[in-house]
Amino acid sequence: MQEAVSDLDGGSLILLSKCLQSSNRGKHCTFWLWPSSDLNQEVKLLLLYLSTDNGLQSLQSCPATNPSMLNVHLVPHTHDDVGWLKTVDQYYYGGEDLLMSDLKHAGVQYILDSVIDQLQKDPARRFIYVETAFFYRWWRQQSQSTQRIVAQLVNEGRLEFINGGWCMSDEATTHYSAVIDQMTLGLRFLNDTFGECGRPRVAWHIDPFGHAREHASIFAQMGYDGFFFGRLDYQDKARRMKTKEMEMLWRASESLTPPLADLFTGVLPNGYNPPEGFCWDQSCDDAPIRDDPDLEDYNVDEIVQKFLNASYRQAAFYKTNHIIMTMGSDFQYENANLWYKNMDKLIKYVNALQAKESKVNVLYSTPSCYPQELNLANLTWPLKTDDFFPYADDAHDFWTGYFTSRPALKLYERLSNSRLQTCNQLEVLGGPKSKSGPFGEGDSDTMSKAMGVAQHHDAVSGTEKQHVAYDYARRLATGWAHCEFSMNVYNPLGRTVSWPVRLPVNGSVYSVTDANGRAVDSQVGNVFISLKCTCYIYDMKSSCLLPLLSVRWFHCLSPHRNESFQKNEVMCVFVLFGNYRYNASAGNNKESRQTSGAYIFRPNSSDPFVINKTAETQIVTVSSTVQEVTQWFSPWVSQVVRLYEGHRELEMEWTVGPVPVADGLGKEVITRLDTDIKSSDYFYTDSNGREVLERRKDYRPTWELKQTEPVAGNYYPINSRAYIKDDKHQLTVVTDRSQGASSIYNGSLEIMLHRRLLYDDFRGVGEPLSEPGEFSDGLVARGRLLLTLSPPDTAADVHKPLAQGMVLQPLLSFQDGTPSANTKLEFSGLQTSLPPAVHLLTLSQWDKDTVLIRLEHQYQAKESKTHSQPVTVNLQKLFSTLEVLGASEMSLGANQWKEDMNRLQWNTEKTSKPLPLSAKDPSPWEVTLNPMEIRTLLLRVRQL
Amino acid sequence: MQEAVSDLDGGSLILLSKCLQSSNRGKHCTFWLWPSSDLNQEVKLLLLYLSTDNGLQSLQSCPATNPSMLNVHLVPHTHDDVGWLKTVDQYYYGGEDLLMSDLKHAGVQYILDSVIDQLQKDPARRFIYVETAFFYRWWRQQSQSTQRIVAQLVNEGRLEFINGGWCMSDEATTHYSAVIDQMTLGLRFLNDTFGECGRPRVAWHIDPFGHAREHASIFAQMGYDGFFFGRLDYQDKARRMKTKEMEMLWRASESLTPPLADLFTGVLPNGYNPPEGFCWDQSCDDAPIRDDPDLEDYNVDEIVQKFLNASYRQAAFYKTNHIIMTMGSDFQYENANLWYKNMDKLIKYVNALQAKESKVNVLYSTPSCYPQELNLANLTWPLKTDDFFPYADDAHDFWTGYFTSRPALKLYERLSNSRLQTCNQLEVLGGPKSKSGPFGEGDSDTMSKAMGVAQHHDAVSGTEKQHVAYDYARRLATGWAHCEFSMNVYNPLGRTVSWPVRLPVNGSVYSVTDANGRAVDSQVGNVFISLKCTCYIYDMKSSCLLPLLSVRWFHCLSPHRNESFQKNEVMCVFVLFGNYRYNASAGNNKESRQTSGAYIFRPNSSDPFVINKTAETQIVTVSSTVQEVTQWFSPWVSQVVRLYEGHRELEMEWTVGPVPVADGLGKEVITRLDTDIKSSDYFYTDSNGREVLERRKDYRPTWELKQTEPVAGNYYPINSRAYIKDDKHQLTVVTDRSQGASSIYNGSLEIMLHRRLLYDDFRGVGEPLSEPGEFSDGLVARGRLLLTLSPPDTAADVHKPLAQGMVLQPLLSFQDGTPSANTKLEFSGLQTSLPPAVHLLTLSQWDKDTVLIRLEHQYQAKESKTHSQPVTVNLQKLFSTLEVLGASEMSLGANQWKEDMNRLQWNTEKTSKPLPLSAKDPSPWEVTLNPMEIRTLLLRVRQL
Repeated sequence: MQEAVSDLDGGSLILLSKCLQSSNRGKHCTFWLWPSSDLNQEVKLLLLYLSTDNGLQSLQSCPATNPSMLNVHLVPHTHDDVGWLKTVDQYYYGGEDLLMSDLKHAGVQYILDSVIDQLQKDPARRFIYVETAFFYRWWRQQSQSTQRIVAQLVNEGRLEFINGGWCMSDEATTHYSAVIDQMTLGLRFLNDTFGECGRPRVAWHIDPFGHAREHASIFAQMGYDGFFFGRLDYQDKARRMKTKEMEMLWRASESLTPPLADLFTGVLPNGYNPPEGFCWDQSCDDAPIRDDPDLEDYNVDEIVQKFLNASYRQAAFYKTNHIIMTMGSDFQYENANLWYKNMDKLIKYVNALQAKESKVNVLYSTPSCYPQELNLANLTWPLKTDDFFPYADDAHDFWTGYFTSRPALKLYERLSNSRLQTCNQLEVLGGPKSKSGPFGEGDSDTMSKAMGVAQHHDAVSGTEKQHVAYDYARRLATGWAHCEFSMNVYNPLGRTVSWPVRLPVNGSVYSVTDANGRAVDSQVGNVFISLKCTCYIYDMKSSCLLPLLSVRWFHCLSPHRNESFQKNEVMCVFVLFGNYRYNASAGNNKESRQTSGAYIFRPNSSDPFVINKTAETQIVTVSSTVQEVTQWFSPWVSQVVRLYEGHRELEMEWTVGPVPVADGLGKEVITRLDTDIKSSDYFYTDSNGREVLERRKDYRPTWELKQTEPVAGNYYPINSRAYIKDDKHQLTVVTDRSQGASSIYNGSLEIMLHRRLLYDDFRGVGEPLSEPGEFSDGLVARGRLLLTLSPPDTAADVHKPLAQGMVLQPLLSFQDGTPSANTKLEFSGLQTSLPPAVHLLTLSQWDKDTVLIRLEHQYQAKESKTHSQPVTVNLQKLFSTLEVLGASEMSLGANQWKEDMNRLQWNTEKTSKPLPLSAKDPSPWEVTLNPMEIRTLLLRVRQL
Repeated sequence: MQEAVSDLDGGSLILLSKCLQSSNRGKHCTFWLWPSSDLNQEVKLLLLYLSTDNGLQSLQSCPATNPSMLNVHLVPHTHDDVGWLKTVDQYYYGGEDLLMSDLKHAGVQYILDSVIDQLQKDPARRFIYVETAFFYRWWRQQSQSTQRIVAQLVNEGRLEFINGGWCMSDEATTHYSAVIDQMTLGLRFLNDTFGECGRPRVAWHIDPFGHAREHASIFAQMGYDGFFFGRLDYQDKARRMKTKEMEMLWRASESLTPPLADLFTGVLPNGYNPPEGFCWDQSCDDAPIRDDPDLEDYNVDEIVQKFLNASYRQAAFYKTNHIIMTMGSDFQYENANLWYKNMDKLIKYVNALQAKESKVNVLYSTPSCYPQELNLANLTWPLKTDDFFPYADDAHDFWTGYFTSRPALKLYERLSNSRLQTCNQLEVLGGPKSKSGPFGEGDSDTMSKAMGVAQHHDAVSGTEKQHVAYDYARRLATGWAHCEFSMNVYNPLGRTVSWPVRLPVNGSVYSVTDANGRAVDSQVGNVFISLKCTCYIYDMKSSCLLPLLSVRWFHCLSPHRNESFQKNEVMCVFVLFGNYRYNASAGNNKESRQTSGAYIFRPNSSDPFVINKTAETQIVTVSSTVQEVTQWFSPWVSQVVRLYEGHRELEMEWTVGPVPVADGLGKEVITRLDTDIKSSDYFYTDSNGREVLERRKDYRPTWELKQTEPVAGNYYPINSRAYIKDDKHQLTVVTDRSQGASSIYNGSLEIMLHRRLLYDDFRGVGEPLSEPGEFSDGLVARGRLLLTLSPPDTAADVHKPLAQGMVLQPLLSFQDGTPSANTKLEFSGLQTSLPPAVHLLTLSQWDKDTVLIRLEHQYQAKESKTHSQPVTVNLQKLFSTLEVLGASEMSLGANQWKEDMNRLQWNTEKTSKPLPLSAKDPSPWEVTLNPMEIRTLLLRVRQL
């Protein structure tokens, strides 16, 4: 922020940050930090002068390097999972984990205590911290004096926040909306607490199991200078090491004008671990540096030589005379002294050899100092345009199971996102009654943090222990409880939706009326009453009255406006729905001992088994609102296929479980759509719910694939949709949650629905993925797929709104009694529907008088003749209840002004693809969105 | 010291301690501590005022207690073995122990780093440190600023040294001479470094496996106010808990006038561990205090209640409203934050309940603050006059094996003590050429420290891992190498000895001459040449020339003075030597799974097996110097019995090993002397080589014993001798090392010689005690027993000098070439022999102009008609090469002036035994020694 006065911890510590714009591309910042009680004293604890010219504002706190030597950047770090084997709170306090002796403590409170102590001992020492969910907990418990010390360490660049989101999100199973939110949550805390010096400059996804292009795009738009990760396909890594392509420029969007979505990306040499023999954590066994010649086993010479060898070995795979070494791992630095004491000695003794003509210079550094050095090298970096899925760490070890693991949690997370958006929007529209912000007492807080935690790469990914999965769900449920409003149907989309509602009932005669008392068309079945609501833009309605025996009433909206939707197209393509299962490998295969587990998908044969060739039971129901076919394939697999009046998509509601395992075989259930579409080996999957990537069976765009798992090696994550197409037809499947999908045969598209397994897959979770159900049997999962068939060139016009409607669903709630006379039965927050291409991604109260809004162009370039065009929104004509007094554009993460964003520029190989052009804003109040663009604005508003 | 200016670390830190004697019983001390570079600045870092009136000088830094509540003294501590599973140096640096995952790091460097950091965070926090061997290593590596901080913490009583010796010595297998030395080494370092505030006031033997009365006597004479330990017989403990006799006054000498050897002694409630559920070290699994109500599993109420329960439960076993809890264990506090953070919370939340009428007051405290509170209670405490051997922790678990474990190491340690004394004495007698002190470059340093380490309760005890045993031996060997002097036979005793010498040779004709070229009577056998040296008081001679083929020459002294020894008495008592073995329990016994191991002795039957009823081979040799019988009982057990001309004792040289174990049985070899002495169930064993205690089979003086192991439960340690007697005869066996001994039958005395075992005994060492020999077979051990038979009332006159001669042996060394003309061939350091009752225990260079001397009366009261009388030594007539200019008496530990010793006074039950009276010094230069008294003097000397 340009000027910020943050009052930390009850007013007694004052951090002043004054940044003066001195030129177009830089500014000068001065920080003063003192306890307010000392204001009258002439004690100035800190005066820091920062020049931010040319985007190098952190460089001055970066350590000196030596241009004529091999510079080894040691990066002390800890990787703190926001839940995995223990819950996030258990990890925070640490201790008491009788299950995992290795990570016995894993106490983040102690890690931060210890690191802060150790940083103070030597100004050369550096540390990075990543997971704001933990840092936030810790910060709240610190004394003012500790907070003051930490702020000073941050200002001096000795403690640096990296990544900075609430968690280190999963990349395969998350939706971009929730990812942006969790990043914003973390980044805002850092910004509010530490100002500019707390702003991360590098993204750091060292552990996620494969990397989504959309994540890279998001990070680029958030202003990050670089991105580092540890895991990629072992074949890909081997090739990159050989060709020195471990570092590259990732062009992460086909729609956004470069360098908007360009991100410098580095593959770390040892995952996120130190080189072998140099782990000095309490959890490690490597020899400490024994440098007292009077004591036994003096080993300085031996260790120094080993380090020099490791450095040269690593340098052979990278382009410059700078290399990075991650000095840390999971929950390390609980006793940071062990690390720093030995690293201090390492640096001392290795660099001492420079006097004897050694050309290795080792230094404490950070992931943001390192790319600055690479940038100065002014090289041309290889260009990457696809993504890093799927991830395999060996020939039979494809991490494609977690795309589907824990389907119920994956759905609940997705529904919670919808609820959170609603909650945020209602806080804005509710005006002054809403609370001030995410760290105040605002009601969206709890959900915001629960969702922040749920994005973690062992949360929504489904790769946590069972008790931890329950904890994530519990947190989300608490979030829901905090998002109860006195309204009953709310449509959080920026446009009208028509939405089928089914409610369980225990009678047979009901009348449903709308807000005006008019009858709503409804249908009472065996145990459900079905009806259809049409919810308008940002509607908050209580209109469908359903007098139940319990004196509860249900509100819905009657379809009193005209439908714009056409009738369903005739399905001119043969689509066969089939339910199949793969039997899971138990690791007794001759090629490999790898089992199918929470992470890994590995069927024991490449052909799935059909569960039942014909559905045993079929119930067909036809009414004015819906046509429905219920099919039972087995006692544990059924589906209902529905066609709603006025909708063009086919809804397929699947129910799978309890998956039987009495035969000793784990099972992974898919639904497969077999068509006569000539898709050949191609299929398409989305990236985090935004742009779509082309997939090709047994093929990777960046290296010559040796395929070793014909099924698992062709699975990709889908977050909102997948499709196959030929010249004439496109079959698109829109999902309600993240799943794994593939096309193994020409014309077929398969989606994995549920998994129940009997073995752990040796990636640390230590449990087989076998979710318990209600009666100690396996979990029953249920979900919806929406299928549409369109010509390819208009398909997006259909699946885009469908997918958005799946992501942001109208919110139903129930209330006892009948509405009082004063009850406001209808309310709309927007003046008018947004243009079809525009999605209101975020609407959230920021401060007392400000609102954060994100407007998104939801079409890719060239995707839709109609919609893949620039579109303009007038901010002042947006809201029905708010007057917009001012608007400032921010980075996507909302932690700096857009105009202050100064990212490093990188040279890359020329590409033959035409670069998209971008249109400009016609006026300060009019925001033009180019395809796939998200614009983040802080609006100053007044409640009308 | 009364005034001390210590220049720490190269002169840039100055610690001034000025203590002014203000009354007979107290003094005022002021400390200033500042960096010398700051001397001109007005920055006074520390000003501490201490009153030492009434011996309560530490009380002012003790925390406040509440007289109307139960005060729980939390004592944060770490127990750092000076070698056990890892060597002392490995423990210092930590890490890299792949054998023991629990104590993976056990890095003392990190412990001290971490504790010092944590103590600074809150002045209420306390820590005690015990093992100076480690602290010394650590201190040397610290910066001046850290040293300054540590000194301040010590001065404020926040870091307190407890015990303070170089190690926490074993009590069963150590010799008092080495124990006093190792204590002096540690205490002197503390005194030199920290002055009076660094002086430990409490002895702390929390881990040794049984407790020797002589140790208590030593601690009392060193000025300690109390003594705490953790291990005692389980039956004894149960009884003491019941009768509230966990705390007592130990009257540790039958000869010294009370309260000279009285020591307040406390049994700790939980060994040295915290109460169950309150271990917060990184190596523990107990729940941390989770006090954030916003996070999961808030557990403050539950933990507080659990703590209150534990406190009340413990208080039931103790007499006052103060109880002590040891908060720590083996190598804990490597990450002290975990402990302190949770203890801080514990104290906060437990004491917060006082507002709600709780009567429990918990506080950080130390083992010296705690007894001061007990002392104020002014109670009468039970009296203890025997010792705490043997130690059993269950019915079949007697820790009596280690009395004998590793017999070769036990001998080497004993010989090294002799060498060290010689080394010390020669430094004094060598005058200005000798180095300044134990922390300078003095040659005795290395041996002094090696011996300090070897006294540890997992060193000479034989209970360490094999590789650690090698390390102790290596250290001693290095010590020997640093004690090579240009002299060849040196007698370190204060009187003349006649000493048989056997040297291995490879020829058959040798002539031996003395310093004057006269022939020495010698005898060449098969591989040995035997001769006899008589070495005079503090002799340094090179007199016996033995022209070997290798041009080496050997020096010995010819018997040119008259012998005062009588001929051997006729052996009028039948003594049968027999060699037996016990077969070790393999833990497959129905009563218990306990095995025999390094610690535990548990034969699988109560009757030993005779190795061979008759010796198979007997060789008899008779010469003018020695009569010798060699007996082979089996290929692995033999003995040589010798009677030397002019000596009255019988020498029995035993050779045992390799002990065969191919039959699957571990074996413990004893020699048993069966006599017709009517000893009934009584026998006698020494305590650490000083006073002798009466033992009675199947009996303990302090409780009604339920005997469960008829052999192992009757074993006691002997360090120098054991005897049986009746009215007429006493058979005394003098040993060359510490061993286990017992008398199972009337008239018999058995001594365990060697042990080889096949199983670990589950006390942590994790190895069976099976020492490797030269060719990957078992170790061969060899040793000597000296047997004398005398009337009981003159027995001490014989065995006392014999044992002293065994402890301090003439030092032989070898040199190439022949002595040059200038070589001084004879030299005596004392003017005359000391009186027979007086033993020169210590003669050691202290500072440039000072010498530490300890004179000991080596007879117990009433032990000898001739010698159990006060005896006076004139200090000025002592040395032939030194003039004594001044003498100041010190405490036994030489860390304070005797006149400043102010120990707490304790009330105890009246005893019917008459108290010994003590004679006074006739003049300032004349030192009178009462029976068993040791007087420690610092002499100011000038080289003549």
